[in-house]
Amino acid sequence: MHNKTDILNIAGDLFSQRGYHGTTMRELARSLDLRGASLYSHIASKEEMLWEIVRQAAGEFLAQAEAVPQDIAPEEQLLRLIRGHLAVIANELQNATVFFQEWKFLEQPLRGKITALRDAYEGHFRRVIEEGTRQGVFHVHDTRLATLFVLSALNWTYQWYHAGGELTMQQLADQYSTFILRALTCGQIS
Amino acid sequence: MHNKTDILNIAGDLFSQRGYHGTTMRELARSLDLRGASLYSHIASKEEMLWEIVRQAAGEFLAQAEAVPQDIAPEEQLLRLIRGHLAVIANELQNATVFFQEWKFLEQPLRGKITALRDAYEGHFRRVIEEGTRQGVFHVHDTRLATLFVLSALNWTYQWYHAGGELTMQQLADQYSTFILRALTCGQIS
Repeated sequence: MHNKTDILNIAGDLFSQRGYHGTTMRELARSLDLRGASLYSHIASKEEMLWEIVRQAAGEFLAQAEAVPQDIAPEEQLLRLIRGHLAVIANELQNATVFFQEWKFLEQPLRGKITALRDAYEGHFRRVIEEGTRQGVFHVHDTRLATLFVLSALNWTYQWYHAGGELTMQQLADQYSTFILRALTCGQIS
Repeated sequence: MHNKTDILNIAGDLFSQRGYHGTTMRELARSLDLRGASLYSHIASKEEMLWEIVRQAAGEFLAQAEAVPQDIAPEEQLLRLIRGHLAVIANELQNATVFFQEWKFLEQPLRGKITALRDAYEGHFRRVIEEGTRQGVFHVHDTRLATLFVLSALNWTYQWYHAGGELTMQQLADQYSTFILRALTCGQIS
């Protein structure tokens, strides 16, 4: 007997490896039948599974960002945003992979909902970078581009980071934080 | 009458939008039939198209890196590697998208060949970062991680950069170069 969480775990596994379009409902059902579950009693469609996975990942990223207090120094806020982001990738690698790679296959209106969540998440980084720039702590000409730079460096880690490998998440977060803070704060090169 | 280049352009368009597994040979043939071409007279399989697109993109990235002289200062070498990378993404966005997203769907031995090309490309960045670190210009604890940081920031641009948009490639390259050089060279935060 499977619950929805089990089904979404298996769907996340298949979608992250083969892609949404590379996974058929038949394969999903087969993976679940092997464990004695019935797919359609829990989930109406493949897109519903994609939506649930992507929404859950977006929710986890947002929850991390929303937990960062806004009354501390911008550098410290940014460090916490970086650690939170990498923690989601490390702890939820499958869902994060589906979030980054497959969200574009959602149809409207779901696609628009995810875009809104992504924008809200990006907004946390941008607000902190703008605040630090206003305070003269960050030296940035274009806060939008700086935000994209930071998120680009962070996002791509899902492609190569493996939990349990040689590099711990703490080491990754520390070194990424150093690089990103240097990139935003140093003034001698412009 | 179509040649192979036209076919690969259309395949690159479809693969980059819908994914390799989301594109059927029937859709490819339909897109080409509309223009009066015959698919199978040029291409044996869908995987051959994926291989040709991914190999071409890998070749363009590598050609840019190989054109950077190795007898100039490491900072300058890195600046040229950054500009070359972003130029391929800007000029060959479709193929670069397929390269980044779909290469993993190649079967062996093609998949292994692409991995080797990616490793060779990454090697150019790593060699320059190691050289700069040895010379004391870059302040980096872990050159492998620094290489991944730089390539992560660069790679993800294919997700959001649009040629012809507000941000020119020159502006993007200049600001990315500033951020990356700051990240590697500044010493006060560690």
